[in-house]
Amino acid sequence: MQSTEPEGAMEVMSEMKCLEILGQHNLGRIAIVVDGQPQIFPVNYAVNGRIISFLTAAGSKLLHAPTSKVAFEIDQYDSLSGVGWSVMVQGVATDATDMFDDVSWAARAVTPRPLAPGAKPYRVAIEASTITGRRFRPGV
Amino acid sequence: MQSTEPEGAMEVMSEMKCLEILGQHNLGRIAIVVDGQPQIFPVNYAVNGRIISFLTAAGSKLLHAPTSKVAFEIDQYDSLSGVGWSVMVQGVATDATDMFDDVSWAARAVTPRPLAPGAKPYRVAIEASTITGRRFRPGV
Repeated sequence: MQSTEPEGAMEVMSEMKCLEILGQHNLGRIAIVVDGQPQIFPVNYAVNGRIISFLTAAGSKLLHAPTSKVAFEIDQYDSLSGVGWSVMVQGVATDATDMFDDVSWAARAVTPRPLAPGAKPYRVAIEASTITGRRFRPGV
Repeated sequence: MQSTEPEGAMEVMSEMKCLEILGQHNLGRIAIVVDGQPQIFPVNYAVNGRIISFLTAAGSKLLHAPTSKVAFEIDQYDSLSGVGWSVMVQGVATDATDMFDDVSWAARAVTPRPLAPGAKPYRVAIEASTITGRRFRPGV
């Protein structure tokens, strides 16, 4: 049977699949908005349920992310198989360093391991409101 | 001589170095803001001077990116060497599909090659206002 999709196919992944993939990786990127200007920073994260947890120094990520809308993304492309995917989390970030709410507790229950050097005494939690993902494979 | 930086070192890269790295890669991510909510999308890009060029279908990236502030980012981490880096471009995105301004011409002079399937008849140009980058290496 001939393929009717010579270009390959794009597939929407379920939220459950996206959460599974988030749990299998540890390097993503957060987008925050500073005075109307979006900025993107790579972070090493850990996930606990629908909560993304990462450590940071005092700086842009801590000053602007907490209690503001952020996006978090991971992606991968395998040049051998031609398969690519991305997962995007949209949600609100909070400073979970020493708060006692459920989200902060959940964020502190997992251990992100920053690869970049430097002290990172603060913890940020992203509580996901929506989690979306797409995956594509090459045409036949 | 003993290292005084057992944690490794973080280095700020020059704009020239960042532009060189941008020219050596083709997969990055754009952050746009939709009703106050940042979103991140992976895109295959090409670069022409300080202009990032990519193709897209009609959709969020085209509807919200043009003539608005965006961020664009690439990063890499090599687990063997322990070296990681990221480059972030901040700037304004415009729909360069059929405009005759210098930025649109420059964007159309290079050829991004989308890996994801699907028609992408529109071209977006990001004119960089700032280009920043960091690189870290492991401690000794």
